[in-house]
Amino acid sequence: MTTHAPLADLTDDELTRFLQDRQAAYDRLRGEGLKLDLTRGKPAPEQLDLSDALLGLPTSTKDRAGTDVRNYGGLEGLPQLREIFAELLGTSPSQVIVGGNSSLSMMQTTIVNFLLHGGVDSPRRWVEEEKVRFICPVPGYDRHFSLVASFGIELVTVDMHADGPDMAAVEALVKDDPTIRGIWIVPTYSNPTGAVVSQEIAARLAAMPTAAPDFTIFWDNAYAFHHLTEDEAKSADILSLTAASGHPNRAIVFASTSKITYAGSGVAVLATSEANIAWYLKHLSMASIGPDKVNQLRHAEFFGSAQGVRDHMAKHREILAPKFAAVDAALTDELAGRGVAEWSHPTGGYFVNLDVLDGTASRVVQLAKEAGIALTPAGASFPHGQDPRDRNIRLAPSFPGLDEVRTAMAGVATCVALAAAEKVAADRDLRVGAGQSAS
Amino acid sequence: MTTHAPLADLTDDELTRFLQDRQAAYDRLRGEGLKLDLTRGKPAPEQLDLSDALLGLPTSTKDRAGTDVRNYGGLEGLPQLREIFAELLGTSPSQVIVGGNSSLSMMQTTIVNFLLHGGVDSPRRWVEEEKVRFICPVPGYDRHFSLVASFGIELVTVDMHADGPDMAAVEALVKDDPTIRGIWIVPTYSNPTGAVVSQEIAARLAAMPTAAPDFTIFWDNAYAFHHLTEDEAKSADILSLTAASGHPNRAIVFASTSKITYAGSGVAVLATSEANIAWYLKHLSMASIGPDKVNQLRHAEFFGSAQGVRDHMAKHREILAPKFAAVDAALTDELAGRGVAEWSHPTGGYFVNLDVLDGTASRVVQLAKEAGIALTPAGASFPHGQDPRDRNIRLAPSFPGLDEVRTAMAGVATCVALAAAEKVAADRDLRVGAGQSAS
Repeated sequence: MTTHAPLADLTDDELTRFLQDRQAAYDRLRGEGLKLDLTRGKPAPEQLDLSDALLGLPTSTKDRAGTDVRNYGGLEGLPQLREIFAELLGTSPSQVIVGGNSSLSMMQTTIVNFLLHGGVDSPRRWVEEEKVRFICPVPGYDRHFSLVASFGIELVTVDMHADGPDMAAVEALVKDDPTIRGIWIVPTYSNPTGAVVSQEIAARLAAMPTAAPDFTIFWDNAYAFHHLTEDEAKSADILSLTAASGHPNRAIVFASTSKITYAGSGVAVLATSEANIAWYLKHLSMASIGPDKVNQLRHAEFFGSAQGVRDHMAKHREILAPKFAAVDAALTDELAGRGVAEWSHPTGGYFVNLDVLDGTASRVVQLAKEAGIALTPAGASFPHGQDPRDRNIRLAPSFPGLDEVRTAMAGVATCVALAAAEKVAADRDLRVGAGQSAS
Repeated sequence: MTTHAPLADLTDDELTRFLQDRQAAYDRLRGEGLKLDLTRGKPAPEQLDLSDALLGLPTSTKDRAGTDVRNYGGLEGLPQLREIFAELLGTSPSQVIVGGNSSLSMMQTTIVNFLLHGGVDSPRRWVEEEKVRFICPVPGYDRHFSLVASFGIELVTVDMHADGPDMAAVEALVKDDPTIRGIWIVPTYSNPTGAVVSQEIAARLAAMPTAAPDFTIFWDNAYAFHHLTEDEAKSADILSLTAASGHPNRAIVFASTSKITYAGSGVAVLATSEANIAWYLKHLSMASIGPDKVNQLRHAEFFGSAQGVRDHMAKHREILAPKFAAVDAALTDELAGRGVAEWSHPTGGYFVNLDVLDGTASRVVQLAKEAGIALTPAGASFPHGQDPRDRNIRLAPSFPGLDEVRTAMAGVATCVALAAAEKVAADRDLRVGAGQSAS
C-alpha cells in the first residue's frame, strides 16, 4: 500500500506539478470513452443468476395449509414465508406480514396510513397536525427522505455515527417536541456508511421518552443478511426492545429479498407489534385482496428455510466482496495519506461512503460524469440533496463487473485528487495552466 | 320452463299450504349439511388451471428492449405488456401503466394521490377540502364504496340502470356541487347487475359540465373481456370521449388479469391521459423502484398478443356459462311467475343480481346461511352495506363446481320462496304453524 504526502504539505511548486499531472491523467481518462455506472445499489446480473432456479418454481400451487396460492386471499402473506422471515428477524410469524415486491411500498403505505388514518397510538390523523417532522440521520438513504418529504413532512437531520445516530441529538429532539413523529434507521450496514446500530443505541431508541405518543422508528433492515466478511453483524432486536420498554408499537421493521433473489421480483416484509399488524392489515384490506402468493410460494420453495436464506447470501458475498476490495484498493492507491478523502470500509451492505475535501464533492461527480463514470449525485444522501459541506459521495460498486469497478474507481480516485488539487491551489491563489476552478 | 302463480294471488289457504310446503323443503335442505359458498367473484380452480403454463414462464429474462427484467426499474411497466393492454383498451402504450397484482391497489393509490397531492386539475389537495363526495351507482361493487369511505369520503347513490347510471341524477349532482369529485363506474358487465354502459351514457359522462374541475370517472373495466355469450359487449372508449369533450384528464381506466390468469398473481393496469400518467408515475416513483417485471414478462409470453387474451377468455366462458345457466334455471324453476323475485341475465362478468321481495333479502341470506350456503351479505352492493329496500342479493356462481352451483341455487331459491311466503303471510296477519316471522 502506497501512502502519499498530504496535499496541504506540498510546496506551491509541488502542488502545481501535482495538479498538472492529475489534469493530464484526467485528460487521458476522458479519452478512454468510458461508460460506467456506480450510481445505484443494484445487484449485478451474476447475482441475479444465483436465483434463476426461481424461474422453475413453484412446483406446487398449494401452500402448507392447502390453500390454492393462485387465487385471491391471504392478505398477511404465505404461512411458511412468514415463518421463515420471523426466524430471520427474530420475531414470531404473527408479527410478520409478507407483501409484494417492494419494501419501499410498504413504508409508503405505512406513512400514508399515519397521514390518513392515524396510527394505533396517534391522537389524530397526521394530516390534521399543523406540522409533522422526521429525524433523518445523515448521510442516509435518499429514498427515505424524499418519500416523507413528498407529503410535506419536514426533515430534521442528525449525524449518523459508526454505531448509529447521534443519540444525544435524537433524545433532545424527541423529548419535548411532539411534531417529531418518526426516525429513519437502516440498522445494519447502513446506506451509505455501512454503520451498524449498536445494541446500546437500539435500546436507547426503544426506551427514550418522546413527546409524541406515536413516535415511530422506521427500522429498514434492508441489509440484515448482506455480509461482506466473516464478521457478521447481528441486528439489534428492536421489536423486543421496544416491547420491553413499554413502547410496543414504536418500531416497524422492513426488509425484502430485493437484494437476495431478484431485485424487481422479490418479496417484501414488515414486522411489528400485533396491534400494528392488525392496524396495517385493516387498512390494507381496503386496497388489496391479497399479495402475489405464487411468488411467495416460489420464494418459500427456493429458500426452504431461514438457513437457506443465509446460505444463499454467502454466494452473494463471493461476488460482492472483491468489488468492495477493488474500491478500497483504488482509493488507497491514489489517495491514502493525501488528506483529501476518507472512505468507509463496510463489512456488509451495498455502499462505500466517500468523503472528499469539503466543497469538492459536486466537482468530483461532474468530473467523473464528463469522463463517462456515473456517480450518485453529490449530496444525495442528505435531505433535499443538500450536503452542507459538499463532501459526501455514495459509491455503489455492486452492479458493474469487477474489472469495470477497478477501472471506474481508478477514474474516480483521479477525479477526487484533481478536484482536491484544484481546490487547494485555488485556496492558495495559485494560477495553474490548464487547471479549472473548483467552483 | 314452469311458470307459477303470483304469491299475491294465492288465497290464504293456498298461501298457508305453500308456506308449510316451503318450510318443509327448507327443513330438508338444512338436513343436507351443505357447505357451499357463493359469496365472492373468485375464479374456480379449473379456470386457474387454464393459466398453469405461467408456472414455466418466462423463458427469457430480457424484455424486448434487452432490459434485464430481474432487476430494478421500469416503473411504467414492461413495453410489450403495455402494448398488449393498449390494444385491448383501445389506447396507446404511452397512456398505459402496468403495475402489480391488484387493480384495487392502483385505485387506492390514485385516491391517495388525490387526497395527499391533488390531481392534475385539482385546485388543492383533497385533504384540504371541507368535504369530498363520490357518486356510487347502486347496486355496485362493495370494495369501491368502502375504499373511499375509509378515507372519510361521502357516498352519494344514484340508480344503476341496464345501460349505465341514472344520468339525469348524475348530471344534476355534478353540475353545481364542487364537493362531488368522482364517480365509480364498472362499464362492462357491471358488478353486480351485469349492466353495460351504453355509448351514449359514456359520452354524457365525458361531456357533462362539472362544478369540480378535477371530477374523475373511476372507470373500472374489470370485466371488459369476460363475455358469457357470443353477444360480446364492446366497452365505450371513455378516454377518447373525455379527450374529445375537452376533459382529457377526467377518466382513469383500471383493469387486471385477476380474472384472466391467476386471481392473486396477475397484473393490473391503469390507462388515462398522458398528463395523468406523468402525475401517477411521479408519485409512484416515491414508493417503488419498479413493478414485478418477471411476472409481467411471464404474462406477455403467456398471452403473446391482445388476441391471445381474447382467445384465452373463450376458455373461461366454456367453464362459466353453464354455471350462469344453472343459476337461471334454479331461480326460474322455483320462482318464475311468483312475483317475489327478479334477477339479471348477464351476458358477461361474474355476478347475477337477485332482487327479492322488499324487506326479505336479509332473511334469505340468513336462511341460506343456516342451511350451509354462504351468500354475500344482503345490502353489500350498497354504500355502508345499507340497502334501503332490503331486497338486493349478489350471487357469485364462479367458484363452486357446476353441481354445487345447481345444489346451492336450488337451496337459495327455496330460501327466497320461503322468506317471501313468510312475508306475505305476515302482511296478511296469517298465523301458520312452524312458520317464522319475516323480520
